[in-house]
Amino acid sequence: MSDMRKTPTIQDVARFAKVSTATVSRALSSPERVSLGTRDRVSEAIRVTGYTLNQAARSLRQRAAKTILVALPDIRNGFFSSILDAIEREATNRGYSVLVANLYLGHESARRLEGYLFSNRADGLLLLDGSLDPQALRVLTTAPHSFPMVVACEDIPNAGFHRVLTDNQVAAERATRHLIDLGHRRIGHLVGPENNVVARERNAGFVSALRQAGIEPNPQWLIRGNFEMQAGFAAAARFMTLSERPTAVFAANDESAIGFLSGLRQQGIECPRDISIVGFDDLEVAAHYRPALTTMRQPRETLGRLAAETLIDLLEDDGTTRSAMHIVLNCELIVRGSTAPLAQ
Amino acid sequence: MSDMRKTPTIQDVARFAKVSTATVSRALSSPERVSLGTRDRVSEAIRVTGYTLNQAARSLRQRAAKTILVALPDIRNGFFSSILDAIEREATNRGYSVLVANLYLGHESARRLEGYLFSNRADGLLLLDGSLDPQALRVLTTAPHSFPMVVACEDIPNAGFHRVLTDNQVAAERATRHLIDLGHRRIGHLVGPENNVVARERNAGFVSALRQAGIEPNPQWLIRGNFEMQAGFAAAARFMTLSERPTAVFAANDESAIGFLSGLRQQGIECPRDISIVGFDDLEVAAHYRPALTTMRQPRETLGRLAAETLIDLLEDDGTTRSAMHIVLNCELIVRGSTAPLAQ
Repeated sequence: MSDMRKTPTIQDVARFAKVSTATVSRALSSPERVSLGTRDRVSEAIRVTGYTLNQAARSLRQRAAKTILVALPDIRNGFFSSILDAIEREATNRGYSVLVANLYLGHESARRLEGYLFSNRADGLLLLDGSLDPQALRVLTTAPHSFPMVVACEDIPNAGFHRVLTDNQVAAERATRHLIDLGHRRIGHLVGPENNVVARERNAGFVSALRQAGIEPNPQWLIRGNFEMQAGFAAAARFMTLSERPTAVFAANDESAIGFLSGLRQQGIECPRDISIVGFDDLEVAAHYRPALTTMRQPRETLGRLAAETLIDLLEDDGTTRSAMHIVLNCELIVRGSTAPLAQ
Repeated sequence: MSDMRKTPTIQDVARFAKVSTATVSRALSSPERVSLGTRDRVSEAIRVTGYTLNQAARSLRQRAAKTILVALPDIRNGFFSSILDAIEREATNRGYSVLVANLYLGHESARRLEGYLFSNRADGLLLLDGSLDPQALRVLTTAPHSFPMVVACEDIPNAGFHRVLTDNQVAAERATRHLIDLGHRRIGHLVGPENNVVARERNAGFVSALRQAGIEPNPQWLIRGNFEMQAGFAAAARFMTLSERPTAVFAANDESAIGFLSGLRQQGIECPRDISIVGFDDLEVAAHYRPALTTMRQPRETLGRLAAETLIDLLEDDGTTRSAMHIVLNCELIVRGSTAPLAQ
């Protein structure tokens, strides 16, 4: 490679990608006329060399798509589909279209998102999945690419990104305290996926509420889950094998709470007679489940709307530098039939 | 207007739209540089004059987006979100991105979809909403525009469109016959939204199964609904006011069945002791509801995958004429705890 302290030129990019400068230029202006493999090599070369596109050209190119990319861990989950609904409404109001990329609970990488942005299919990124590598994301959000990005729902802390979130830890404390207030002392937690930031925050809130009440969390009662109904159902079978069982469980989300309740019922455990359960999200079905589920309501519509609003504001504010936005919304405890005072 | 039997020219379009030919040309090649109002006027003028774009130019333009537009009635509904999931997987495998447009149960028109296609944001349309005007859609799918389109989930019959569907009427007959086989004769139907084609097909299947069994449907027992949980819940209150009540109900989908069950329970009606209920869709929660819901399982993954496959095949087959595809998938009766033999 040439001396990297010089401002890199299109020749540097071409040399690194082993293509002609005409190909580099075509890959930038009309990516559809270049093979995916070549485009990837050129993108990689731009990243490595730090080549800066002409800002005005980039800005023109950016605005052309009038499209935002929403990357989320699981479209099928009712939580994310209602956030997506709110995002789509706000984007449509502002004249933007919405591309969706399903990341299958973090099984994909930032690499796939680059494809949408480098090919000009999207102008900016609304990221609802906290599992992606912050370094890889920073490549997208800083010069030379500088794609606007807003992180929503699942936090990526300390990386300088714009963020629109709910206070998961505080809300999990509140949910757990509700169980303590009902007299429960043996309290378990049906946790979310390993390495998921929201799962970690809710777990931390659970532990902190117990400690504040002078209760030492029992590691046996941290029941493995992954936010899915089926995992909650499977967790019920493991719950039955515990020698000593909790009288109350805080589930990391409603889907797993419902699966867990369904599994427990098969085992003859009745809620709230034998066990109290709190969920998280307040999915529509929570109110119509039996028993109706006590849960923390996330302000899904507001969250989706604000996330889209923040990203579109950034897109339309091209050129000005903003300090990172950090919006945190509160959740609300909705008490229903799945929690009851500890039987004496 | 000039004589319409001549081949229309760009001058005709410009004259009709009251803009210069340069503006027409810009609206076609770089729509982002033209105001939305002007673009609309030009689109309208193209439609009215029947101006034919250079086919090669259009084809190049089309392929540039490598994006399909999925228009659906309600993203939040678990049925549509899992179809969207399957579409996104297939599209991603084939190198296409997915734009979503939420039509809010038919409250929007084909006009909005034009915007995505005319602005080159999408190459073709996957339409999951049967409520749009076939005439307006035909403008999009025939010359001069000729955008490929596939209708999925909700049929638009007799319009010559490519269609990937399930056999709603046959499946509704099967669901109703299940109740008849259990000895029920007083059978009601919680219907879907008025003017929704799927709701009509399921209603027709319900009526036909009853008639085949020599039972005359009671119009009092056609209970108004709209596929939403809340509407099912509200329907339960109306159900209670009936002087004579059915012993079994076929609900047009699972969401409304769950809301209905939840509402009935509040009124002291127990399922399946007092009433049997069959749903439609087999949402994930159906198996975990209490009672677990008997329902018609729609092959959602296959449906979404085939719909995306069909559309992308059409996009990549540019130039060849195909006769309209018509794929119909079968549903499967899943018997669970919400249906029981009529108590003697």
